[in-house]
Amino acid sequence: MKPAFNPRNRLNFSGGPGVLPETVLHEVQEAVMEVPGVGLSILGISHRSDWFAAVVREAETNIRTLLDLPPDYHVLFLQGGATQQFAMVPMALPREGKAPPEYLDTGYWSAKSIAEAQRVAPLRVLWSGRESGYRRLPQDAELSYAQDAAYLHYVSNETVEGLQFSRVLGREDVTRVCDMSSDFLSRPCEAQRFSLIYAHAQKNIGPAGVTIVLVRDEIIRQAPAGLPSCLDFRAQAEAHSIHNTPPVFAIYVVLLVTRWLLREIGGLERMDQINRAKAASLYACLDASTGYYGGWAAREDRSLMNVAFTLPTPALQQEFLLHAARAGFSGLEGHRAIGGLRASIYNALTLEAVVELCGFMADFQHRHPC
Amino acid sequence: MKPAFNPRNRLNFSGGPGVLPETVLHEVQEAVMEVPGVGLSILGISHRSDWFAAVVREAETNIRTLLDLPPDYHVLFLQGGATQQFAMVPMALPREGKAPPEYLDTGYWSAKSIAEAQRVAPLRVLWSGRESGYRRLPQDAELSYAQDAAYLHYVSNETVEGLQFSRVLGREDVTRVCDMSSDFLSRPCEAQRFSLIYAHAQKNIGPAGVTIVLVRDEIIRQAPAGLPSCLDFRAQAEAHSIHNTPPVFAIYVVLLVTRWLLREIGGLERMDQINRAKAASLYACLDASTGYYGGWAAREDRSLMNVAFTLPTPALQQEFLLHAARAGFSGLEGHRAIGGLRASIYNALTLEAVVELCGFMADFQHRHPC
Repeated sequence: MKPAFNPRNRLNFSGGPGVLPETVLHEVQEAVMEVPGVGLSILGISHRSDWFAAVVREAETNIRTLLDLPPDYHVLFLQGGATQQFAMVPMALPREGKAPPEYLDTGYWSAKSIAEAQRVAPLRVLWSGRESGYRRLPQDAELSYAQDAAYLHYVSNETVEGLQFSRVLGREDVTRVCDMSSDFLSRPCEAQRFSLIYAHAQKNIGPAGVTIVLVRDEIIRQAPAGLPSCLDFRAQAEAHSIHNTPPVFAIYVVLLVTRWLLREIGGLERMDQINRAKAASLYACLDASTGYYGGWAAREDRSLMNVAFTLPTPALQQEFLLHAARAGFSGLEGHRAIGGLRASIYNALTLEAVVELCGFMADFQHRHPC
Repeated sequence: MKPAFNPRNRLNFSGGPGVLPETVLHEVQEAVMEVPGVGLSILGISHRSDWFAAVVREAETNIRTLLDLPPDYHVLFLQGGATQQFAMVPMALPREGKAPPEYLDTGYWSAKSIAEAQRVAPLRVLWSGRESGYRRLPQDAELSYAQDAAYLHYVSNETVEGLQFSRVLGREDVTRVCDMSSDFLSRPCEAQRFSLIYAHAQKNIGPAGVTIVLVRDEIIRQAPAGLPSCLDFRAQAEAHSIHNTPPVFAIYVVLLVTRWLLREIGGLERMDQINRAKAASLYACLDASTGYYGGWAAREDRSLMNVAFTLPTPALQQEFLLHAARAGFSGLEGHRAIGGLRASIYNALTLEAVVELCGFMADFQHRHPC
């Protein structure tokens, strides 16, 4: 049973949940009825089975391999999305004897992380792009980190605005925490320089419903006691992510995606090359339009994952979406926070699909001059 | 595309994640590649799409219809399993001016709920079956409820021990909270007598990764302010369960299961009849064995969902599991907390499968006398 790949999935530029690799979808389809070697539906297998323990182990090993992760990190598969991490991080990270943690406010999602963390305890906003409409990221000279901050938190890729850091921020002597939800496993990321990395799955690594956390053992050992177990990294680490029933299906899909990254793509350096080629094509298309397609992000901070742009008028934007849908493209609406359009070009979105979109955009501009 | 149903799914007696209806698995399999009417994989559809909003609405409506739920209840689809509810309930429910909430300790899962709730605030254990090995449930005469308790919490069906209440407990003037994880939507439940009901999906209503909460608006309005949004029923209710990215796939499967309950089964009264017939067959098989198969639960508290039992010796239990696996049965190992064996006979497990198990058990006893 291997039906032809539905072509609309191939042209799905959704900001997330996003497209998954074709081979993964075929494997998932098979597993819904019968997991190879098990004989049961993936939806009906006990999370306490040896098979599922092996799934978690292999998914973890694959992530370690892809990121060259040192052994003193735990790899956790949790629930609740990045939003739950926004609260878990300030609850779990030690701050005694330290200055408040420092947060970067670089876009829609980092603003959300700050709002949630502020409900837990005080923090310092080190830099904010809010006033300037989140169109650029800070340069190093604009950031004066405190040496005694409890930790630094930032978002590596702002999904809504399409802004992405191409360097690691912060001081080596301050705990570094990063929300990599929308670029995790899209490129090498020097994971060993972070104390805690979290990423929900639904961009590059699986379906909505599982969040991956990489956390150094040292952090877990210092975490406060007495937290409810759903908020306690330690409880999850001790149980190898099976403290209570985990999202079995979503973790299985993550396993399949990590296998695809290792076996079909060949690792994160290669994935990064492909992603750079995709982004280069699309930004070249924007730049060649001489302002017809206006990029949201400052050129030097452009994301390789999310390309937010506008057309000359709202009416043309509507027209664009209409024609794009007819041509088989989907997911091109911009996020409601900033409007406009957005093409998300996550790992599983192919270069061919990006080229097809560029062709469509050039053609649309030609047929709809402003 | 409708391949034959994998027979091993039909004989899956797992305690959870458990078997789902055959028609649902076929629909899920199709949706992995292409959701009818949408054209995209269920794993790549935005949670902000009109389509997904309609999925949540219909799933909610179906649950309201099945339970005859009054309009002043919210129906929420959350993450984190019952374990997260163990902590969310004591955080969210008002207790000012009240005596501590009362909890019933009737088995493995209610003991877990008590341990988590105690991390949040004091409570009173109204009755405990721990000393007697959780083999029976309390009778009304053993329960002296406080009139001013903040709320009463109990577990309607103890999954591990196979104990189930066949009545609603508590006082009408005290807020009633129930963990119905393992019998939700298996029978009518007088939902309107509860202020809050929660149930993870992976027994009767879907895959692991989504938890359903029914909560009266009055409770939500009194909830304390300032909770992180991942722990805040109000934030989820205001956003119709789409506060942040929900587990899209798991909610879609819940929708398909509720459709199956309404259209193929015909509602909860009919489901209850079928479940009673299944349980009657299996308990009759136990009783007819004259002690060879020893039931864990007291006769009057027997669960319609989980039948925990033992064989005369551990060696015979191992032999039983071996032969059962060869005959195509799976999921019959008892929970590690009490050992032995357990047949879980959730909604999607058919009467035919139960009859087949009974036949196997009678045959096994005949061939392996003690």
